[in-house]
Amino acid sequence: MEHVLCGKCVRCGREYPAVPDLKTCGCGGILDITYDYDRIRPRLTKDVLAGRRTPSMWRYRELLPVEADTPAPPLRVGWSPLYDAPRLAEQLGLKELWIKDDGLNPTASLKDRASSMAVAKAREAGAQVIACSSTGNAASSLAGNAAAAGLQTYIFVPSRAPQGKVAQLLTFGATVLSVQGSYEDTFELSKAAIARWGWYDRNAAVNPYLSEGKKTVSLELMEQLGWCVPDYVALSVGDGCTIAGVWKGLKDLYALGLIDRLPRLISVQAEGCCPLNRAIAEDAPWRPMEENTLADSIAVGVPRNAEKALMAIRESHGLVVNVSDEEILEAQKLLGRTCGVFGEPAGVTGTAGVRKLCEQGVLGAKDTVASIVTGNGLKDVANAIRANGSPISVAPDMQQLLQAFADNGIDPA
Amino acid sequence: MEHVLCGKCVRCGREYPAVPDLKTCGCGGILDITYDYDRIRPRLTKDVLAGRRTPSMWRYRELLPVEADTPAPPLRVGWSPLYDAPRLAEQLGLKELWIKDDGLNPTASLKDRASSMAVAKAREAGAQVIACSSTGNAASSLAGNAAAAGLQTYIFVPSRAPQGKVAQLLTFGATVLSVQGSYEDTFELSKAAIARWGWYDRNAAVNPYLSEGKKTVSLELMEQLGWCVPDYVALSVGDGCTIAGVWKGLKDLYALGLIDRLPRLISVQAEGCCPLNRAIAEDAPWRPMEENTLADSIAVGVPRNAEKALMAIRESHGLVVNVSDEEILEAQKLLGRTCGVFGEPAGVTGTAGVRKLCEQGVLGAKDTVASIVTGNGLKDVANAIRANGSPISVAPDMQQLLQAFADNGIDPA
Repeated sequence: MEHVLCGKCVRCGREYPAVPDLKTCGCGGILDITYDYDRIRPRLTKDVLAGRRTPSMWRYRELLPVEADTPAPPLRVGWSPLYDAPRLAEQLGLKELWIKDDGLNPTASLKDRASSMAVAKAREAGAQVIACSSTGNAASSLAGNAAAAGLQTYIFVPSRAPQGKVAQLLTFGATVLSVQGSYEDTFELSKAAIARWGWYDRNAAVNPYLSEGKKTVSLELMEQLGWCVPDYVALSVGDGCTIAGVWKGLKDLYALGLIDRLPRLISVQAEGCCPLNRAIAEDAPWRPMEENTLADSIAVGVPRNAEKALMAIRESHGLVVNVSDEEILEAQKLLGRTCGVFGEPAGVTGTAGVRKLCEQGVLGAKDTVASIVTGNGLKDVANAIRANGSPISVAPDMQQLLQAFADNGIDPA
Repeated sequence: MEHVLCGKCVRCGREYPAVPDLKTCGCGGILDITYDYDRIRPRLTKDVLAGRRTPSMWRYRELLPVEADTPAPPLRVGWSPLYDAPRLAEQLGLKELWIKDDGLNPTASLKDRASSMAVAKAREAGAQVIACSSTGNAASSLAGNAAAAGLQTYIFVPSRAPQGKVAQLLTFGATVLSVQGSYEDTFELSKAAIARWGWYDRNAAVNPYLSEGKKTVSLELMEQLGWCVPDYVALSVGDGCTIAGVWKGLKDLYALGLIDRLPRLISVQAEGCCPLNRAIAEDAPWRPMEENTLADSIAVGVPRNAEKALMAIRESHGLVVNVSDEEILEAQKLLGRTCGVFGEPAGVTGTAGVRKLCEQGVLGAKDTVASIVTGNGLKDVANAIRANGSPISVAPDMQQLLQAFADNGIDPA
């Protein structure tokens, strides 16, 4: 990997050779993959990208930490659609709003980007087994991407994981351990098991390559925007790995001269579980919190990648905002009705935050915002139905239909 | 639409001008949109397509029945991934097998292709309201595509529709009528309501433009295969509209000289509901059947597009095969474990049929097959969990984990 310099600890600065099974620093800090931008700059230009048809994250191979001959894993991950949302922008009072629907990845979440990278690196490492702990999406994405590549998986999820994610895991043939405890308990058990059996580690807060997969969402976002940088990029935050990855991608593009300024990040957490946003708001070290939200993917009381996430928010002069579960479900409906995008609760939390900042007057008519939907609503149907009520039940008869419309105050004319 | 000649009745041959709200023939027959291939041929070449980046069904605009200035609707439909599946091919004893995962469309089914077309034509017709009846997927795709375009929808679904599809409908803001009856009852009620209130009709067996949307799945398939035609294209069949659309696309490409032969279709239905396959097998007119299968999307006892579907199967010298619900769930697991593709029951029914034909020796080591997965497994989580059992429940403790592995006969080493 001539374009990769090393893995550098974000805490103590120590540098490590970029071997395929790189983990955390001896000091406990998380590593950041550093690149030789001078080498990459002439190879990855706007023109080069404009000529590429590959509609996947692997179109950015020059910025990904893999060997030149490492095959892209089988599932087609990335190049999710970016929608201009003029009606929603108008409703919220924004100048421009774009919605990037990452729920349209193969296993229906942004986490596919990290899992595709994990499979590529596991192959480089010669591993046959990959393992992770996850609130659900990292798990199902790892299971799917590994199955397509013929690799075996051990997956640890908290017992609260929604049925949709569990169904995916089982269908993909993963060995699924449902841990009776919090995400923190789940993470620790997976860590111990990985150490014991030597599986390839897909925990995003341990394996520094995974953020590099996640960063492709912002590479795509900027290319899809024609390299015009929005004022803000909003997304939900749990473990901290995704926002760290998003920031890394933006900084890569800035270092290469592909964008001429950096957007500010908007970190959105659930009111019932917001340890990172609290740390920013209080300008204090983060402290653990309860995991009290229906947005299961971001119900992370002990964020495993707090250092990188907090650095990203601070470096970008970012905003933080917390939203209630009700505000999350309202955002789900809003995105469905105005954009035809159905996100899971954590998936729409970024948009819920944007809406709240608009209502508070923090964002307004001069601002352009991109909001990333990180997972598909089909993963958690129960909460969507809870938020939306029921269909109108009718017998197959026109008189009954007329009555049903009248009863529900609907004028079909 | 200078490239469109007319809508021609498949039963009596009568021709109608291609107005935006075209429906069925006066004789009751379904119309088929006919094109001026001589006009299209020089405009839609392999080179022209190779230069297009648009990763959506609208890359084939020259072959779609819309005005030149009709905008493509907002949601990005089509250009779903095609996966080479060498391990599954080997397991089944086929020369080559490709899986096209159409469950990765915006609302997670192939039906998005027809709904995108419906939205485009409704706009041409100046309509503000679109309606349809559906076993579920046409409904949720119409609701999503219409919401993104700012159009209102009335949707009729049988009360058996799975929760995932209902959740989508409600989130997209459709007015949803859950009809206490069969799909046939649901269809008839929607037909009466559409006639009464004059909504734009998105019933695929009435509106001849919708097949033209669906056909894009085979246009893509052939382009993704580099215009090398497989021996067979397999898919599940319910109403008959999808297989008719698939065949139409193949014939279009053949007429334009973009492919040099036509594949044979494999029509797969559920044993508990196979009126079309029965008609082919008995070489007799089709007769209604009970709707007795868990594959809800193809549980269609009175297929509304029997004429086009039967013509497609016969013209292609196609094969028909029926599969049990158990075989469907087995195919779901097989696709998950070997390809990382999670399809809903009806979505994987095509692959279930391929597997059965391999076991029967009808297909074998000389054959190349493309199998279309028509919908995402996340739409029907209950059946997937039923098929796959449960995760292994453990307390967050290494001793408990060791015990759980031992109890389940798992050797993690």
